[in-house]
Amino acid sequence: MEFEQAWLDYSRKCSCEGTDGIEAVFVGIADDRQDILIKNSVAELQRAFVGLFGRELAVHTGAPVGDGICLALREGMQAEAYHIYEDGGKISIEASDSRGILYGVFALLRHMQTENSLRGLNLTKAPVMPMRMLDHWDNMDGSIERGYSGKSFFFEDNEILVNDRTVTYARLAASVGINAVVINNVNVKDAATWLITERYTDKVRALSEVFAGYGIKMYLCLNYAAPMELGELASADPLAEEVRGWWKKQMAFVFREVPNLGGFLIKADSEGRPGPFTYGRTHADGANMLAEAVAPYGGKIIWRCFVYNCQQDWRDEKTDRARSGYDNFIGLDGTFLDNVILQIKNGPMDFQVREPVHPLFGGLTKTNQMLEVQIAQEYTGQQRHVCYLIPMFREILAFHTYVAKECDTVEDIVCGRTFGQKNCGMAAVANTGNDENWTGHDMAAANWYGFGRLAFEPELSAEEIAREWIRLTFGREEQVEETLLYILMTSWRAYENYNAPLGIGWMVNPNEHYGPSVDGYEYSRWGTYHRADHLGIGVDRSGAGTGYALLYREPNASIYNDKERCPDKLLLFFHHMPYTWKLKSGKTVIQHIYDTHFEGVEMVDEMVERFRKLQGKLPKKPYQRMLERFLHQKEHAREWRDQINTYFYRKSGIADERGRKIY
Amino acid sequence: MEFEQAWLDYSRKCSCEGTDGIEAVFVGIADDRQDILIKNSVAELQRAFVGLFGRELAVHTGAPVGDGICLALREGMQAEAYHIYEDGGKISIEASDSRGILYGVFALLRHMQTENSLRGLNLTKAPVMPMRMLDHWDNMDGSIERGYSGKSFFFEDNEILVNDRTVTYARLAASVGINAVVINNVNVKDAATWLITERYTDKVRALSEVFAGYGIKMYLCLNYAAPMELGELASADPLAEEVRGWWKKQMAFVFREVPNLGGFLIKADSEGRPGPFTYGRTHADGANMLAEAVAPYGGKIIWRCFVYNCQQDWRDEKTDRARSGYDNFIGLDGTFLDNVILQIKNGPMDFQVREPVHPLFGGLTKTNQMLEVQIAQEYTGQQRHVCYLIPMFREILAFHTYVAKECDTVEDIVCGRTFGQKNCGMAAVANTGNDENWTGHDMAAANWYGFGRLAFEPELSAEEIAREWIRLTFGREEQVEETLLYILMTSWRAYENYNAPLGIGWMVNPNEHYGPSVDGYEYSRWGTYHRADHLGIGVDRSGAGTGYALLYREPNASIYNDKERCPDKLLLFFHHMPYTWKLKSGKTVIQHIYDTHFEGVEMVDEMVERFRKLQGKLPKKPYQRMLERFLHQKEHAREWRDQINTYFYRKSGIADERGRKIY
Repeated sequence: MEFEQAWLDYSRKCSCEGTDGIEAVFVGIADDRQDILIKNSVAELQRAFVGLFGRELAVHTGAPVGDGICLALREGMQAEAYHIYEDGGKISIEASDSRGILYGVFALLRHMQTENSLRGLNLTKAPVMPMRMLDHWDNMDGSIERGYSGKSFFFEDNEILVNDRTVTYARLAASVGINAVVINNVNVKDAATWLITERYTDKVRALSEVFAGYGIKMYLCLNYAAPMELGELASADPLAEEVRGWWKKQMAFVFREVPNLGGFLIKADSEGRPGPFTYGRTHADGANMLAEAVAPYGGKIIWRCFVYNCQQDWRDEKTDRARSGYDNFIGLDGTFLDNVILQIKNGPMDFQVREPVHPLFGGLTKTNQMLEVQIAQEYTGQQRHVCYLIPMFREILAFHTYVAKECDTVEDIVCGRTFGQKNCGMAAVANTGNDENWTGHDMAAANWYGFGRLAFEPELSAEEIAREWIRLTFGREEQVEETLLYILMTSWRAYENYNAPLGIGWMVNPNEHYGPSVDGYEYSRWGTYHRADHLGIGVDRSGAGTGYALLYREPNASIYNDKERCPDKLLLFFHHMPYTWKLKSGKTVIQHIYDTHFEGVEMVDEMVERFRKLQGKLPKKPYQRMLERFLHQKEHAREWRDQINTYFYRKSGIADERGRKIY
Repeated sequence: MEFEQAWLDYSRKCSCEGTDGIEAVFVGIADDRQDILIKNSVAELQRAFVGLFGRELAVHTGAPVGDGICLALREGMQAEAYHIYEDGGKISIEASDSRGILYGVFALLRHMQTENSLRGLNLTKAPVMPMRMLDHWDNMDGSIERGYSGKSFFFEDNEILVNDRTVTYARLAASVGINAVVINNVNVKDAATWLITERYTDKVRALSEVFAGYGIKMYLCLNYAAPMELGELASADPLAEEVRGWWKKQMAFVFREVPNLGGFLIKADSEGRPGPFTYGRTHADGANMLAEAVAPYGGKIIWRCFVYNCQQDWRDEKTDRARSGYDNFIGLDGTFLDNVILQIKNGPMDFQVREPVHPLFGGLTKTNQMLEVQIAQEYTGQQRHVCYLIPMFREILAFHTYVAKECDTVEDIVCGRTFGQKNCGMAAVANTGNDENWTGHDMAAANWYGFGRLAFEPELSAEEIAREWIRLTFGREEQVEETLLYILMTSWRAYENYNAPLGIGWMVNPNEHYGPSVDGYEYSRWGTYHRADHLGIGVDRSGAGTGYALLYREPNASIYNDKERCPDKLLLFFHHMPYTWKLKSGKTVIQHIYDTHFEGVEMVDEMVERFRKLQGKLPKKPYQRMLERFLHQKEHAREWRDQINTYFYRKSGIADERGRKIY
């Protein structure tokens, strides 16, 4: 398929000083340490040089003779780290393991494509987060839950696919440092039940070996009730001996058959999925039982904290879904085994365009934690709107939890700096599918690229990451770069502007989660309300309300709890406010709603206007594909603007100060 | 299946004076006129007597000897009419055709089961509406659009079913006077394309013959684009010779293969279905072309008037979906051939719990018309709520259009009294499926029963029909009869009370059309808006607004146009009114909303309380089945009440005068 190489497309000729003399790869690595990763590293260099420079690289084993790229293993470096340096025309890539070599190769290629020279190159990088994971919500029938880029490339008609596309996927993921991939949907039981059985082991192993070649551990989602469905046990009680025995036996089987398996991801006791609650057991009981079963094989259990009552009565103002993750897990802090990791969504609700940071970050102090974000743009435009999420992720990572005097940000926690943990990191719900360009919207690929880069090097700015992605994907033409950069860097703010205001979220059409519906979730069972009436809007989560604000450490708790100090952008999440309330910006809430919604549309108009000027400067097919989506976004942003403004104008009766058209 | 006989269940012993002496059926009909209908009539009598009285009836041909039931054809009676009379213990059923005999047999059985005596019986009845039709929305895969009673019994896996259930269906339909049935969904093209091809003719014929045995003509829905899909023509232009030729040839084929075919039902140029508009032709061009093709075989073309713009912009307050049926068809009055019938929905929107009568009734004066109602409870509780619709249908039929000095009601028009038409009548979108009891909710069968009875004898009151159905279905126990009668007669009013207020409609969840969502259709493309703001609600369809009110004849136009004179129950359909407006009832609009919603729930509570007292008096299975639905209705009526009251309280800020709980 065309465009299938995404940012690894080597067909555009590259100009980079210092590459001319490079004619060979010297593999200075003992034969017995030349594993498949080293082979794939060399092959990647060869492939790239043919494409970028029209030159076949020779491969030599042993000490270098003349200019070339030298690969060498060196003791004493951090795992997965690499050191690249130029010395008199010779380029060395050194690492203490073959994964580091592979990352070094991709880093070198990235440098050649995005910069002008190799002269004086001297780069040492170690991945900052131990786990950098993609979670796919692919189903065995080939569909993808919340997939906006076509069908699955892992599954089709209940079979596992292992083919060229799998290899390209693994290369793309590895090139940005991804080292763990969950292939099946955490929300659906079929694959989660059957992938650990004999029926699928051959293909599961084959797929895991493709990943292994690129330093990626494969993970599976697991059905907590598997002992009942597969083992014909009467229970899945984590404290029952026969259940524990069943899991141990089953795990011995699975890890023998699939040695590259990293472990399992589990959603238990949430949104209808089974779990330990059924047996009066805790999440820790459930997770630890599985952790014991996988420990002999170095396996990990990743346990989702997305647990809440999804049968809430909208009339009930006491129950607060935002509290539920915290309330369910905080009491279990310190009771999980070391190979258990809690996977915590960035916010307490569900991947809205704006949420406060999840209070479990900073709450938990003795538990391995992983930050879960969603690059599948479920609530952020479904890859029909452009919405570059890296700026949002950086804000989340930079959030001070005040759990410690130093190293107290979310980034510190999930990098292991706060508590010295190793089993931690960041996971993203993936945005890929079988569409030619992988992500539906060509620009959505920046989120995939960016997520990996950010997890590897969180010190990179969103803009730096965006520039890299643009250069790798579309070359170094200045207008292209500046235009696409402008669009990416504007997009999240634009989307937030025309979406639900001031952190309240959820004004989407039920189920599909696309397009505006202000009351779409207002009278439903999902715990997602805005409580707007003719005088005001927002949920009182202060101490006088549900108390959610007080779950944070000080000074966050006091700030959020106080409507005068709460940041504007989260005000309606924490407080029910009159439309006439003056924000810190000096605007009233209602005027803020009107202004941001008009501004959001203007921002999209500007994005599209600039984009149109790239006609002829971008390849025709991606240009057309993007243009079509931009035109839809233009219209759909107006739909958001008009529905939301109209809703609040009709409800409040307060006119726009500037007299613009509201229906 | 148990309960499959519905109101033709003869297993309950019957006591009726004058039946004891009946030992035989005397068929006083010449051999050559003893068609399948006569045979089925005799068989029905025999079957009933075995069940009701435990007695085999002998069958004699020729003059009667002793007591018995005598069937005889007699010249000079109206088609389909029957005369039943008792004379010295002998019961005669006379008619001028065998369909009249069949209807007489069912009438006699009904009388025996619902009344105490046959003595002095003397009953002459002729069906008042020429066409009494059921429209099924069944798809060839076995699903039913807007079906709430299980799968199709006409189709399964793209095959046509002809079996015992088909026969029972035909008996049930004929027993209430149905004489036409459309078997496939008017909204879906698959069956509409393929049923007229060789692939299906054997089964289509077999099915039509089952119907023929009970006096029912079978109709098919037709895909207007069939010449393109089947005939490989490049167009379906109704004025193109090759298209006309294709249809003539195809119709010759179909009617030769399926002689009992009555004709076709077509939805054209509506909700995405193809039609003559594509070619710049009118509905008359399209309908007449087909009518010419079927005329040689006595076929009829039934053309739906449900045509509107379903891509409307909610911001557009000028376009009015309510006008569209009228605007599309009024100019074509008098241009349709005589075997074309326009099928007009009861209201201008789409089967809401309350709508004004469609203005084409009284608008058209030179066109055959058929009233279309929906007993599938799409918007009236989906056969989980009980909602007996016969009172609504009677109101519609009784509506004075003022199209003539006398005989100006909708009933007069569709009975043929106003314009002397023969091709007219009433059709109902069917509510049946493969559920054991045919209709999901046992009480929904009253709508099926009632529709047929009403079309045959519109002079029957809703209460009379209800009593008949109860007695036939559950026997003559007084408490059972009075309780179920109370429930049926209360149900529509209760449902309207807790539904959208004052005729505005559409406050349902999009797509599924079940459960409240006040803004569910407010910002959509379907032309279905309530325009509520903080001061008032309603659509201005007066002359100052969309002008819809003026489509009616005087004095209706003036009454609807004037907010002071417009009936309360339709006020918000015709006018945008402040919440503080005083209704004729003396209540304000907002207080009316609150009061009716509390009352609606109280009415359901009363219904359920009374129903519970029937435990032990109804067969266990239907009792449980109904109880389960009643308990759901109780809860769901509260959901309606609370969502609607809360929505308007939050929007208007006006408190309930009586201080009841609103959220």
